[in-house]
Amino acid sequence: AGMAAMGVASADQFRSLYAPIAPPQSIDLGKAELGKKLFFDPRLSKSGFISCNSCHNLSRGGSDNLSTSIGDKWQQGPINSPTVLNSSLNLAQFWDGRAADLKEQAGGPIANPAEMAFSHTLAIDVLESIPAYVREFKLVFKKDKIDIDQVTEAIAEFEKTLVTPNSRFDQWLLGKTDALTKDELAGYRLFNESGCVACHNGPNLGGNSFQKMGVVEPYKGNMPDGRAAVTGKDADRFNFKVPTLRNVELTYPYFHDGAANTLTEAVDIMGRLQLGKRFTKEENDQIVAFLKTLTGDQPQFMLPILPPSSDQTPRPKPFN
Amino acid sequence: AGMAAMGVASADQFRSLYAPIAPPQSIDLGKAELGKKLFFDPRLSKSGFISCNSCHNLSRGGSDNLSTSIGDKWQQGPINSPTVLNSSLNLAQFWDGRAADLKEQAGGPIANPAEMAFSHTLAIDVLESIPAYVREFKLVFKKDKIDIDQVTEAIAEFEKTLVTPNSRFDQWLLGKTDALTKDELAGYRLFNESGCVACHNGPNLGGNSFQKMGVVEPYKGNMPDGRAAVTGKDADRFNFKVPTLRNVELTYPYFHDGAANTLTEAVDIMGRLQLGKRFTKEENDQIVAFLKTLTGDQPQFMLPILPPSSDQTPRPKPFN
Ligand code: HEC
Ligand code: HEC
Ligand code: HEC
Ligand code: HEC
Ligand SMILES: [Ca+2]
Ligand SMILES: [Ca+2]
Ligand SMILES: [Ca+2]
Ligand SMILES: [Mg+2]
Repeated sequence: AGMAAMGVASADQFRSLYAPIAPPQSIDLGKAELGKKLFFDPRLSKSGFISCNSCHNLSRGGSDNLSTSIGDKWQQGPINSPTVLNSSLNLAQFWDGRAADLKEQAGGPIANPAEMAFSHTLAIDVLESIPAYVREFKLVFKKDKIDIDQVTEAIAEFEKTLVTPNSRFDQWLLGKTDALTKDELAGYRLFNESGCVACHNGPNLGGNSFQKMGVVEPYKGNMPDGRAAVTGKDADRFNFKVPTLRNVELTYPYFHDGAANTLTEAVDIMGRLQLGKRFTKEENDQIVAFLKTLTGDQPQFMLPILPPSSDQTPRPKPFN
Repeated sequence: AGMAAMGVASADQFRSLYAPIAPPQSIDLGKAELGKKLFFDPRLSKSGFISCNSCHNLSRGGSDNLSTSIGDKWQQGPINSPTVLNSSLNLAQFWDGRAADLKEQAGGPIANPAEMAFSHTLAIDVLESIPAYVREFKLVFKKDKIDIDQVTEAIAEFEKTLVTPNSRFDQWLLGKTDALTKDELAGYRLFNESGCVACHNGPNLGGNSFQKMGVVEPYKGNMPDGRAAVTGKDADRFNFKVPTLRNVELTYPYFHDGAANTLTEAVDIMGRLQLGKRFTKEENDQIVAFLKTLTGDQPQFMLPILPPSSDQTPRPKPFN
């Protein structure tokens, strides 16, 4: 009651720790359009069945909503697929940050035997055999030959467009004082005052640091080394890139192993493991209500139409 | 040379055996929009990974461009996935015509253990647990409960919109005399005068009769019973619904077993097996050139954004 009476002053001390998602800037539209096609093209996989969009489904908040992904030949992946939405705002890519940026990241899955199971050479052979792609690459990159660098650059440029501005939280940050309900504002205060903001801050409410999973209490789920696998430092064990909370309503299940099915569960676990706090049901509900205000406008675009293979295109090999 | 001199008179005797693809009529847009979401929603499958669009990829001419499809757990399907483009114009659905229409067809794959591996009851449970779907079904169907009938009706309504007007052949049929090149017109004449038109006619250049595969010579590939499985008649063995040739440039590989990788191969086989004709390389090229004029405008629409699951939504079971 006291909380409601106070409201949340626009001068609150936490507000400056956040920022609204800005629309993408200085996008090379030709590159991004080409990258969109590549993002949706299953011919970048050995089977001809799996595209980036299979695991980062842009109809579903940019992830696959599975605990761990399905890769080539239905292999069960080791880790939960993070959203590609707003991933351009992250300090690095992957849970352990092993890719510096989107361009570096995009080379990974094509050649990963458990994901698209192809090779860069084979992917280029396929693209080079498709006349409309040859023309489009030439138009965009002004080179005679397609190479993997162009492929990852185009995909990364498309991914830069995948931001989600205009969430109700952003509207509120930008001055629409009635954009959040009383319960959502209460959740916002709890999020700040309990200490969630220490790790989940900035425009992405996360994505800008590596933090230990299980600060106060150890995590009971599957536990890879995390950041330590990259740095080799013992202090980085069980550290992960803090996931963005943007669109978190859409990116269930939660955590690196996808073990938490609901936001209620994830918030409860975060409270206990990271902060030593047990939220009441009402508090948990309010935090969840706040997190749902972080769903922004989803990228809206026409389903890309892919150019057909030619008689020379190497055929997919789904079953061998 | 003689052929080119004659041109193709607009009064040619074959012209009336074809018809341009018309834009879809009397579409219930609410139903079709809902059906579009369902068509793209992997939650209609047990795994949460496979949607109608996985095997009828609307970025790729409405099929998967695999010899035979990949279903639940990477099962290899028995038969080539036909395009859903213009399938509303077909006299019946499936290679053997075992579904009378699109609505009847759409119930099949959801419950097919080798495709989406779900059940209608489980699919309805999932949909009923998603508040935005519950509202949208209520708005469209004005019923209190979602049922499978509504699901298949909505999907079928969406599929009715998946027509591809405005191919160059249709422009030519509609009077644009220079819409086809000399070689394409030569291919058109060969298509008519060799007898292809006997089976591939009407607006869909096919889709309106069942015909034997291997009239003159038997087909050497995998050979299911075809239409006989439906009618029980021996005379219908190896009969298949004649596939549409609309967008055939996009729907490689060809035939019920997807054994022909190129149009060149498919045309050669058709000539020999159905008509006892061996086309020269030039003739084959001309027929292929004609077939490529049948690529129409692909359906253009925004990638649908799917409503998120709720805490009550049963979770997908990809690995058990
Ligand atoms: C088979 C499933 C699968 C496919 C296919 C796939 N990804 Fe991923 N993606 C994942 C998983 C799982 C991770 C997390 C891996 C990790 O952190 O170790 C990931 C991580 C990412 C990230 C990092 C996001 C972040 O914030 O850390 C980006 C970006 C990304 N993928 C883009 C792509 C692109 C582009 C493609 C296609 C070229 C692609 N993915 C194909 C499953 C997949
Ligand atoms: C000490 C740093 C830290 C604090 C404090 C913290 N988090 Fe996290 N948060 C993380 C890390 C790291 C992860 C990823 C853990 C993993 O997946 O193993 C995470 C994951 C999450 C997730 C799941 C996101 C996803 O997409 O999987 C949610 C939701 C979340 N945090 C909310 C909160 C809330 C609410 C609070 C406060 C109660 C909070 N966090 C406090 C670091 C922190
Ligand atoms: C795992 C792959 C797969 C999935 C998933 C799938 N289909 Fe199919 N579809 C096929 C195959 C293969 C056939 C041909 C089967 C046959 O003829 O016996 C087919 C046939 C069809 C046809 C008949 C077209 C014609 O002209 O005969 C339509 C229409 C269709 N599917 C629509 C759908 C819809 C709608 C869904 C989702 C509810 C769906 N399919 C899911 C593979 C799939
Ligand atoms: C007697 C009927 C008949 C005649 C004549 C005929 N076809 Fe066919 N056509 C079919 C049937 C039936 C199929 C499907 C066969 C199968 O998949 O087993 C087919 C398949 C095709 C396909 C593959 C389509 C796909 O999507 O898989 C092409 C291309 C084709 N025909 C072109 C031609 C051409 C060109 C001619 C003339 C040279 C011709 N057809 C003559 C009945 C006929
Ligand atoms: Ca997740
Ligand atoms: Ca019918
Ligand atoms: Ca085909
Ligand atoms: Mg009913």
